[in-house]
Amino acid sequence: MSKVSRRDKANAIRALSMDAVQRAKSGHPGAPMGMADFAEVLWSDFLKHNPNHPSWIDRDRFVLSNGHGSMLLYSLLHLTGYGLEIEQLKNFRQLHSKTPGHPEYGDTPGVETTTGPLGQGISNAVGMAIAERTLAAQFNRPDHEVINHRTWVFLGDGCLMEGISHECCSLAGTLGLGKLIAFYDDNGISIDGEVEGWFTDNTVKRFEAYGWQVVPEVNGHNSDSITHAIKAALEETDKPTLICCKTVIGYGSPNKQGKESSHGSPLGEDEVALVREELGWESDAFVIPPAIADAWNMQERGSAAEADWQQGFDLYEAAYPGLAQELKRRMDGNLPTDWARLSANKIAEISNKAEDVATRKASLNALNAFGPDLPELIGGSADLAGSNYSIWSGSMDIKENHGGNYIYFGVREFGMSAIVNGIVLHGGFKTYGATFLMFSDYARNALRMAALMQIPSIFLFTHDSIGVGEDGPTHQPIEQTASLRMIPGMSVWRPCDGVESAVAWQQAFEARSGPVSLIFSRQNLKHQPRTPEQIEAISRGGYVLKDCDGEPEAIVIATGSEVELATGAVKILSQHRIRVVSMPSTDRFLDQDEAYRQSVLPDSVTNRLLVEAGVTDGWWKFIGLKGRVMGIERFGESAPAGEVFRHFGLTEEGVAKTLQEMLKPN
Amino acid sequence: MSKVSRRDKANAIRALSMDAVQRAKSGHPGAPMGMADFAEVLWSDFLKHNPNHPSWIDRDRFVLSNGHGSMLLYSLLHLTGYGLEIEQLKNFRQLHSKTPGHPEYGDTPGVETTTGPLGQGISNAVGMAIAERTLAAQFNRPDHEVINHRTWVFLGDGCLMEGISHECCSLAGTLGLGKLIAFYDDNGISIDGEVEGWFTDNTVKRFEAYGWQVVPEVNGHNSDSITHAIKAALEETDKPTLICCKTVIGYGSPNKQGKESSHGSPLGEDEVALVREELGWESDAFVIPPAIADAWNMQERGSAAEADWQQGFDLYEAAYPGLAQELKRRMDGNLPTDWARLSANKIAEISNKAEDVATRKASLNALNAFGPDLPELIGGSADLAGSNYSIWSGSMDIKENHGGNYIYFGVREFGMSAIVNGIVLHGGFKTYGATFLMFSDYARNALRMAALMQIPSIFLFTHDSIGVGEDGPTHQPIEQTASLRMIPGMSVWRPCDGVESAVAWQQAFEARSGPVSLIFSRQNLKHQPRTPEQIEAISRGGYVLKDCDGEPEAIVIATGSEVELATGAVKILSQHRIRVVSMPSTDRFLDQDEAYRQSVLPDSVTNRLLVEAGVTDGWWKFIGLKGRVMGIERFGESAPAGEVFRHFGLTEEGVAKTLQEMLKPN
Repeated sequence: MSKVSRRDKANAIRALSMDAVQRAKSGHPGAPMGMADFAEVLWSDFLKHNPNHPSWIDRDRFVLSNGHGSMLLYSLLHLTGYGLEIEQLKNFRQLHSKTPGHPEYGDTPGVETTTGPLGQGISNAVGMAIAERTLAAQFNRPDHEVINHRTWVFLGDGCLMEGISHECCSLAGTLGLGKLIAFYDDNGISIDGEVEGWFTDNTVKRFEAYGWQVVPEVNGHNSDSITHAIKAALEETDKPTLICCKTVIGYGSPNKQGKESSHGSPLGEDEVALVREELGWESDAFVIPPAIADAWNMQERGSAAEADWQQGFDLYEAAYPGLAQELKRRMDGNLPTDWARLSANKIAEISNKAEDVATRKASLNALNAFGPDLPELIGGSADLAGSNYSIWSGSMDIKENHGGNYIYFGVREFGMSAIVNGIVLHGGFKTYGATFLMFSDYARNALRMAALMQIPSIFLFTHDSIGVGEDGPTHQPIEQTASLRMIPGMSVWRPCDGVESAVAWQQAFEARSGPVSLIFSRQNLKHQPRTPEQIEAISRGGYVLKDCDGEPEAIVIATGSEVELATGAVKILSQHRIRVVSMPSTDRFLDQDEAYRQSVLPDSVTNRLLVEAGVTDGWWKFIGLKGRVMGIERFGESAPAGEVFRHFGLTEEGVAKTLQEMLKPN
Repeated sequence: MSKVSRRDKANAIRALSMDAVQRAKSGHPGAPMGMADFAEVLWSDFLKHNPNHPSWIDRDRFVLSNGHGSMLLYSLLHLTGYGLEIEQLKNFRQLHSKTPGHPEYGDTPGVETTTGPLGQGISNAVGMAIAERTLAAQFNRPDHEVINHRTWVFLGDGCLMEGISHECCSLAGTLGLGKLIAFYDDNGISIDGEVEGWFTDNTVKRFEAYGWQVVPEVNGHNSDSITHAIKAALEETDKPTLICCKTVIGYGSPNKQGKESSHGSPLGEDEVALVREELGWESDAFVIPPAIADAWNMQERGSAAEADWQQGFDLYEAAYPGLAQELKRRMDGNLPTDWARLSANKIAEISNKAEDVATRKASLNALNAFGPDLPELIGGSADLAGSNYSIWSGSMDIKENHGGNYIYFGVREFGMSAIVNGIVLHGGFKTYGATFLMFSDYARNALRMAALMQIPSIFLFTHDSIGVGEDGPTHQPIEQTASLRMIPGMSVWRPCDGVESAVAWQQAFEARSGPVSLIFSRQNLKHQPRTPEQIEAISRGGYVLKDCDGEPEAIVIATGSEVELATGAVKILSQHRIRVVSMPSTDRFLDQDEAYRQSVLPDSVTNRLLVEAGVTDGWWKFIGLKGRVMGIERFGESAPAGEVFRHFGLTEEGVAKTLQEMLKPN
């Protein structure tokens, strides 16, 4: 029998949290202090994890969706033994610490996803739960459950107010993700004060409407009630569970608990002292009494748990060596060993076909070509499967078949994208989410989060620019390609034909350290003939597609559907020396060395024209003040695509005319 | 007794819709055909409107949130007499027609908002209902109800799956918007097919959880049931109502009704012929039998309804001439007559105070200065009132006081922004919505919709760039300012001190034809001294803040918090001739004539440095290939703001060093 009580353990979290925030002079003490009791029960008695090996593949995933409560997570990671030293907690929110203001994936062992932008953590968790169920169905065998873990989420009022919580929780209910368990920190307070002024949902009823099991009215400060609720969640295997924990924000603070004043600022030295009295916590800041530290340490239990699992895995490996190896390969994020050869061959085949094709269709062709060799492929569309061509020949609905690889996301672009991130974070998959490029707007912060986390999510966007035609300006992305390029670390590809489309997919599959946005046309585009060297060069992001003899009089840079306008214009002006550069990916081109970039865009040629059917602001660094751009700086028009292109002067003749003006001697 | 039946009238909608889609060879026949019956009941018997005067201020507002069903709305506008001629319906989805693929505000009389991007129509409608209730409370007097109208919305499965529907409907329930009535076109089909594969919400329960009245299981093809449901909605004055209409998509199409094949493509000539048979509709395409046309025409009833109202308004005007005049002024969107003088005086006062202040605080100062003269001001924050400084001295919660002017939006950035658009569309208000600049990402498509509609919504964004400090990269907007500037028609202001902040607000209030994004700092910024002429010049978007004698050796362009770095650097390099240009608004600067732009940025000076703590791609058109940029091309860091600035080299000394390198002779 331990003399350390559950309350002592929870108070360790409270003390670390308030002290770290106090020392940093900024942060959020209220949430960790309010959630400490249910966190203690979960992490002490139910969470399957091994602090000695945070990347154990069959660990439970834990997501703090209300990421501003980061000190809760840092406290837990420190206390249970993840090697997050007390010095790091003292350096909470300081430069180069492992304890940034919000939990950041990659910075801190045990942080499964970056959270803070509300509602996305729970959405990532839905993705993790999908990944677990799918991987389990694909790899487990009778008597061999090598994949069998849960996804646990903490979330608050903010997450529940955000629209994305509707999208992902509705889908989680539809998919029946029985191993997803969320704790709602129902403290009645958000930043502006008591939520009844702006948030009066009956959350129990709302989640029941989604098909969740809801455990209502749990006293979030009573360990027995919490334990009871968790057991109910474990018993329900066909529905996700929401445990509604009534808590007091800033629990333990005599003057600030239950008030928004404990939410987002240090409590103040005096109040911190009062909390110590109130909780009977006698240790100095950042000092954990040894008995409590011992009670918290999970290293031994964690290693034992993993050793148990490893024993099972060894048996599995003996029985199914191929499967075991494949599981390891996928969890390591490695492509099949012969990928380089395979993908090059497929691209060569596609080049040989020389098809004129809409690049969205070319994208499907690429999926059909690469898909059979990529069992790790999973993805879906936000209710635009037919338009996005997101269903390839090997697609199988995961709702019907848990080992499938296709997700009908419904009309939920933001939720989809955050779920894609969750699947990628879980590991074992190459994952894509598809919608119209226009609705990248709806998903934008999830795309950014993928870039910030440096994870290789794939976003498949079709129907780019005015080629959308009749649906009109609400559906014609003008600024989206350009603004996706502005997200640091997002790789953006806008291919001009079937070959570039296949290379773009190849690059997306090969990506390991950041997301890729693939942008495809609705309308047919002409095949561009290329030498094998030119095909090679596509992966450099920009390359000379048509060259002239001698120094060019002008260079036309184009992407996507405008490449054929550029090559057509140059044909019209065949008496001139004009080079056409196809630049499907500006970020990849900028990654090339100076010599290569100069070989494509030599400084000596300042007569440069950019043609892209969208806003051109981002292109001036390739063009210079002496260059010109042909783009679209206003919203589009509803009409057949060809007419809209003519309306905006984006034709072979239009490009030729502009070039001619540029070639005139001044 | 008319020999024209309700079904005949509804079939007129069906015929026009399928024929227009067929002729356009693209579009969505299914939704109009499915919704025709309840549309007929609403528009014939309940909607208060006057086709002769679509801008009648006390008309009911009608919003087609599932905007792809645009032919429903065009049919209704044509049939009831809005002057939308049959030629326009024949030109559905053609260039320069008044019948674009999705309804566009400003293109077509009677279209109250642009819809298509799902979920935003219902959100606009929530804004309209807020506007109506607020305006009524502000202007109605005992026995004088000059403002008393309803907001009606049609929406489909797509709108209900989108997260934004959660945000706005939850808030509508909390606010008890009793005059908001939505029809759910519950046809069980979305683009990917039968929704049960991805959308299994119990929508009745969900909306009850929001505090709505729900009328469930209405037969959407039975006029009596529909009438009954609408009456129930009219009787409930304290809650919004959702009427759930079970319908058959593509109703009337023997082979395609009830199937996704009727959703987004023409039915085909053969099927169109079969529909004619099935419905007994004998007229040729685009021909409405005179009796049916007569039965539909609402011009007389509409004019009578408005005349009734006008009579009441005349009495009101006699009793309250000042109020009546003020109501007209506000509905016309005019500022108070002495605004120019008033605002200039306030700006001069602010300049005289010469305060060093965080621009978010300067923004509050501006609201406090201008607010008392702007009774049309309404706004709020997405749960960041204290951080955004969105509550000014005259703010009053609209939940507590229906005539108030402050909205606690909750953590709902996208919903908030679309609601702001709805309030602006309704008329009578200058409206702002506030959040952290980072979360402009969440709201992005609503910002775009404001720009597309050319309406003067005001978006107040605080906590720009790395000045956010400890909250870290999840909360430090790096690419947001740059990408807001890419939205065509969005005016973006990033002021450098209190004076520029006040001018930015002045410009936002004066805007009539597009939205304005105001971007403010978390941290204190130095006051910049200016001559009266310089203060005048701020509204030109870019101006010379510090000049040198003779032709400059270099020009530094800066915005916001980096302006003080530029002026500081120039002080360090006082032996050099360096000009500092402050450019709070690039779009406004680009609107100036060539002569003015040259006076600020003469072609002769190619030594140009841009300093802005964010991605710099958009700046090269001001800088040229010989210029340099100091920005941030990666994500930020969690640490105190000053340290993060130093980490990225953004200091007076850093800027001076770069300038010095540029000034070295080659």
